[in-house]
Amino acid sequence: MKDMDDSAITRNGNSLILAYDHGTEHGPVDFEPMPKSADPRHVFEVSQHDAVTALALQKGNAEYYRNWQENTGNEGAPLLLKINGNSSLPKREDYYSPKQCSVQYAVEELDADAIGYTMYAGSIHEDEMWKDFREVQEEARKYDVPVVMWSYPRGKGIEENPDYSGQKDPEVVAYGARLGLELGADMVKCKYPGNQEDWERLESQVAELKTVMSGGSKRSDRAFLQDVHDTIEVSGNGLAVGRNIFQREEPGELLDKLEKVIFEGKTVDEAM
Amino acid sequence: MKDMDDSAITRNGNSLILAYDHGTEHGPVDFEPMPKSADPRHVFEVSQHDAVTALALQKGNAEYYRNWQENTGNEGAPLLLKINGNSSLPKREDYYSPKQCSVQYAVEELDADAIGYTMYAGSIHEDEMWKDFREVQEEARKYDVPVVMWSYPRGKGIEENPDYSGQKDPEVVAYGARLGLELGADMVKCKYPGNQEDWERLESQVAELKTVMSGGSKRSDRAFLQDVHDTIEVSGNGLAVGRNIFQREEPGELLDKLEKVIFEGKTVDEAM
Amino acid sequence: MKDMDDSAITRNGNSLILAYDHGTEHGPVDFEPMPKSADPRHVFEVSQHDAVTALALQKGNAEYYRNWQENTGNEGAPLLLKINGNSSLPKREDYYSPKQCSVQYAVEELDADAIGYTMYAGSIHEDEMWKDFREVQEEARKYDVPVVMWSYPRGKGIEENPDYSGQKDPEVVAYGARLGLELGADMVKCKYPGNQEDWERLESQVAELKTVMSGGSKRSDRAFLQDVHDTIEVSGNGLAVGRNIFQREEPGELLDKLEKVIFEGKTVDEAM
Amino acid sequence: MKDMDDSAITRNGNSLILAYDHGTEHGPVDFEPMPKSADPRHVFEVSQHDAVTALALQKGNAEYYRNWQENTGNEGAPLLLKINGNSSLPKREDYYSPKQCSVQYAVEELDADAIGYTMYAGSIHEDEMWKDFREVQEEARKYDVPVVMWSYPRGKGIEENPDYSGQKDPEVVAYGARLGLELGADMVKCKYPGNQEDWERLESQVAELKTVMSGGSKRSDRAFLQDVHDTIEVSGNGLAVGRNIFQREEPGELLDKLEKVIFEGKTVDEAM
Amino acid sequence: MKDMDDSAITRNGNSLILAYDHGTEHGPVDFEPMPKSADPRHVFEVSQHDAVTALALQKGNAEYYRNWQENTGNEGAPLLLKINGNSSLPKREDYYSPKQCSVQYAVEELDADAIGYTMYAGSIHEDEMWKDFREVQEEARKYDVPVVMWSYPRGKGIEENPDYSGQKDPEVVAYGARLGLELGADMVKCKYPGNQEDWERLESQVAELKTVMSGGSKRSDRAFLQDVHDTIEVSGNGLAVGRNIFQREEPGELLDKLEKVIFEGKTVDEAM
Repeated sequence: MKDMDDSAITRNGNSLILAYDHGTEHGPVDFEPMPKSADPRHVFEVSQHDAVTALALQKGNAEYYRNWQENTGNEGAPLLLKINGNSSLPKREDYYSPKQCSVQYAVEELDADAIGYTMYAGSIHEDEMWKDFREVQEEARKYDVPVVMWSYPRGKGIEENPDYSGQKDPEVVAYGARLGLELGADMVKCKYPGNQEDWERLESQVAELKTVMSGGSKRSDRAFLQDVHDTIEVSGNGLAVGRNIFQREEPGELLDKLEKVIFEGKTVDEAM
Repeated sequence: MKDMDDSAITRNGNSLILAYDHGTEHGPVDFEPMPKSADPRHVFEVSQHDAVTALALQKGNAEYYRNWQENTGNEGAPLLLKINGNSSLPKREDYYSPKQCSVQYAVEELDADAIGYTMYAGSIHEDEMWKDFREVQEEARKYDVPVVMWSYPRGKGIEENPDYSGQKDPEVVAYGARLGLELGADMVKCKYPGNQEDWERLESQVAELKTVMSGGSKRSDRAFLQDVHDTIEVSGNGLAVGRNIFQREEPGELLDKLEKVIFEGKTVDEAM
Repeated sequence: MKDMDDSAITRNGNSLILAYDHGTEHGPVDFEPMPKSADPRHVFEVSQHDAVTALALQKGNAEYYRNWQENTGNEGAPLLLKINGNSSLPKREDYYSPKQCSVQYAVEELDADAIGYTMYAGSIHEDEMWKDFREVQEEARKYDVPVVMWSYPRGKGIEENPDYSGQKDPEVVAYGARLGLELGADMVKCKYPGNQEDWERLESQVAELKTVMSGGSKRSDRAFLQDVHDTIEVSGNGLAVGRNIFQREEPGELLDKLEKVIFEGKTVDEAM
Repeated sequence: MKDMDDSAITRNGNSLILAYDHGTEHGPVDFEPMPKSADPRHVFEVSQHDAVTALALQKGNAEYYRNWQENTGNEGAPLLLKINGNSSLPKREDYYSPKQCSVQYAVEELDADAIGYTMYAGSIHEDEMWKDFREVQEEARKYDVPVVMWSYPRGKGIEENPDYSGQKDPEVVAYGARLGLELGADMVKCKYPGNQEDWERLESQVAELKTVMSGGSKRSDRAFLQDVHDTIEVSGNGLAVGRNIFQREEPGELLDKLEKVIFEGKTVDEAM
Repeated sequence: MKDMDDSAITRNGNSLILAYDHGTEHGPVDFEPMPKSADPRHVFEVSQHDAVTALALQKGNAEYYRNWQENTGNEGAPLLLKINGNSSLPKREDYYSPKQCSVQYAVEELDADAIGYTMYAGSIHEDEMWKDFREVQEEARKYDVPVVMWSYPRGKGIEENPDYSGQKDPEVVAYGARLGLELGADMVKCKYPGNQEDWERLESQVAELKTVMSGGSKRSDRAFLQDVHDTIEVSGNGLAVGRNIFQREEPGELLDKLEKVIFEGKTVDEAM
């Protein structure tokens, strides 16, 4: 575990990751509510808001982002390169996410500020992913870039286990976070289990490891900010968010509020 | 994504790829309508037309092509080396296309101007192909040669998904194109979904990425040119074509017309 | 087999390994009886007792441990880096434990004093684990660090063999220990088969190889110390223990007693 | 495709390959008709006939051959090292032939004049064999030794395809030969489909690639020579033969005749 | 095939290999008839008899053996390092024997005089073992150490083939021996098929390759010596033996007799 407080992707110890891998993971359907969101340049621009401490991209878009920065002179957010990913097109026996970028390429060619890796613990492919992650983590250490684990336990081991209610089962979410600590991640991105108590339980498993909550279902801005605040209050370190930001007509408004909650220690009332 | 406008395989920003991998993919049966088309030298000669910005070959024919150029003194079209491919002989569990040439060999020994790779998203082997492509793409970057993805979603994930009508489903074609962007291709070659509107939808997913439409079913030259023109009109960048050119007695005639439509901004009427 | 008497993880030829990989192997549930045991720093502190000759950690906690030592100035116990491990989340066809750390990283970056590897002989994945272990053992030799094999025969080959009563069958335990000798481990960690005679049988199979007994079921401190003493008496070399130590309010008391039995040749009565 | 006319394994542009891999492929049973043929030295001696332009051996016999040459002072035929092969002992799911020799070893240690590789297109393992062949072909290029492909389409893809009558189906044989061209072989060894017309069809698919016919069923010497002549007449480049030569009491007689037909342009009548 | 007559593991052209891998292959049960045989040091001592030209060990015991030699000053027999092996604990789909030692480690670190490899032709894993053996054989050549193949055809391909009566079928044994020749071994260790005639058949398949017979069922010393003699008489090169030697109270007596039969050309009557 690295000291993330000096990292390019944190600010006052916390993070707001703007994730834009929907074109890989779900395809064009995700951009339908706001067609211009299919154009990466739109999201690159959104990422310039001060609240964004990292823009998470797959390799192709990361190449494009670096070109865009150079061509436009815009600075944009620090680059969090997602090292693996998958499409929703094939029928897999169970969850798996192959590497589509090497750490070497991410750092040497794309000057990534951090590395992201999705771990599907609970899948029959979990052991293979451990091996993939081992390599990724150690190579990232070599280059001294931090590693964010998208820790998403799922698959047959979760679905078919009567002790678990599903991917948001507090026990499952906490076990996933703990694996981030045990395997050597510097930050974990976890599903919000639904209430502060269960997030606190998760925090109890990871000592000083940085945690960010992952999106969640559609709700009002106030309810959303409240969830973010609730995690911060019990040692959470922020948020990873995608469509809820880049598919707004005025993403700046919500980003302003998130900035207050995540980086300035404000309550929801103060932020609204 | 590289700036392809300076590339050896584009002209005025667009491309016409003459593809000749039928002997690999389908075998002798494809040459029956015009037996001399089985001889690569016939196609090498056709490729000399100014309209052809790339000749796509498998390794063995590429070696032969370089010898032919040297022995005859002919210049021929730039070489687009197809890195993977397969025969139609075995019964596969699902679509897969193994590498038959390394990027190193393609560039160092055969001086390839570009690299081609077929991606079968939707196959149960998709994840393995991502890994193969990762390596190919990064090695191509090292040598600074562009990568063209034959992006052909197919296989059980497409066939057994009731939401999709098949390989030409506009959603499927657009998702395939988007994967080219996300994974770091410099150009995608996609099935023509059948009408301009669906091609435009595809274009909306790939920002500035170059796109070429792939052949399609037999129709009149006018109808064919119209399809090509329709894609160009909505940001398409040209065409990949095979038998429809090299199995004509006078391929130069159609190539003349395609040249006007693809590189000179002419309408079909102007080109005919 | 190395001469372990000079090793950092032995004292007077014996060892007491404090194992803390429960967050990997079983998840948060293992920490419930004593919530603060979920915090690695609690266990790091416990490991400072003189009786502890090695603290066994997975990579992430080992990184954390090295930071903790540096930041607090505490010395702590020698580091035994567990090279492989697994979570209990997926449904595996049979037992397997993937590598989550390379020996190179363990030694060069984490300055590990010893390497630990779990071998599941009897699993359908045993042969694959032999290959993994071969590499681990030879790399450890290169760096001159000793290798401890968690030798735990289990899986279908054990469960479905009517000749065996299970994982603690004396024949199974002894065969597992012997594999440690044959494959080149420097110490084996074996399940206590339940009585001194069966441990003696195990010892007869491993010549001078170091052996440590592994935990066992809950029982009184006296009974526990008696088991430890019984193995020592017949050439055993100590103990690997986890929750039975770090989940006590006052672990020092039992550690004091274990120290007498394991390193000072005391009887249980003398130690109590 | 290399210019094979300068190759060590051709003479006047054609080849006669004496193949001796029966001990690998079929075992002792193949030597029963003439027990002394089980002794490689017998075949080494036969290979000294001027008509033999290559002796095809597996690694072990190739090592033995080089020793024999050194010890006896005999020159023998150029060495064509078979890089892969298999035994008939296991029940495979479908045809596959693993590498038993690296190209590096073949060339650096055994000074091979050419490399041989068996390709089973049509097998479910075809794609894996493409990958194996890719490596073999590119390494052979590095050492500048020619590659002969034993192109034998077979397996479930052929047997279960109602369009094909079997391994000697003219379409299948021609497709196999074409794959030799596409994948970068310098010579293909194909089953004789049974008549000159079908061999001509095969030749039409491979441009200038060298071809040799493979053995065939037992028939009179005249009929056999006629088949060889028929292929030569339509651009064939010779023959690969095994037992029909080395299991004769006087192999020299038939070799004399083959020499006339293959290298001297004689008719069968002239050769008899 | 190397000239083995100069090898460290032959004497007068023949070999007596004392094999001690029973702890790996069968576990403690094999040592029950004579408990002290579980201690490798007992066998190390036995190996000092002049008749023993090689002691075959797995890696862990080989490390121990080298230490024992150094510590005791005993010379012992030349070391034949078994590179692969397996335990009898798991249920495998078919026979396989994974590598537990690299050739590099065997030679560079353990100064092995020869390498041993078990080949299970006839298993569905045969092709994989060919690949493993290829690497082993070529690496051994690099270090100039001879390779002994334990050539034991077995598995489904043998059991389910009605033409074969089992592992000792003379045809099967001879095919196995031939594979040793074809794949580049320097000596093969084969099951004794039961009579001299069948061993002679085996010899007819391997030219000058060294052969040693493998143990066989319990019988009188005279009958055992007769079998050994019968193989020697028809070009056999000796014996590999284990428990029949090291589990005797006075192994020297039988070793004296074997010495006469194997290395001094004596008849059984002369040796008794």
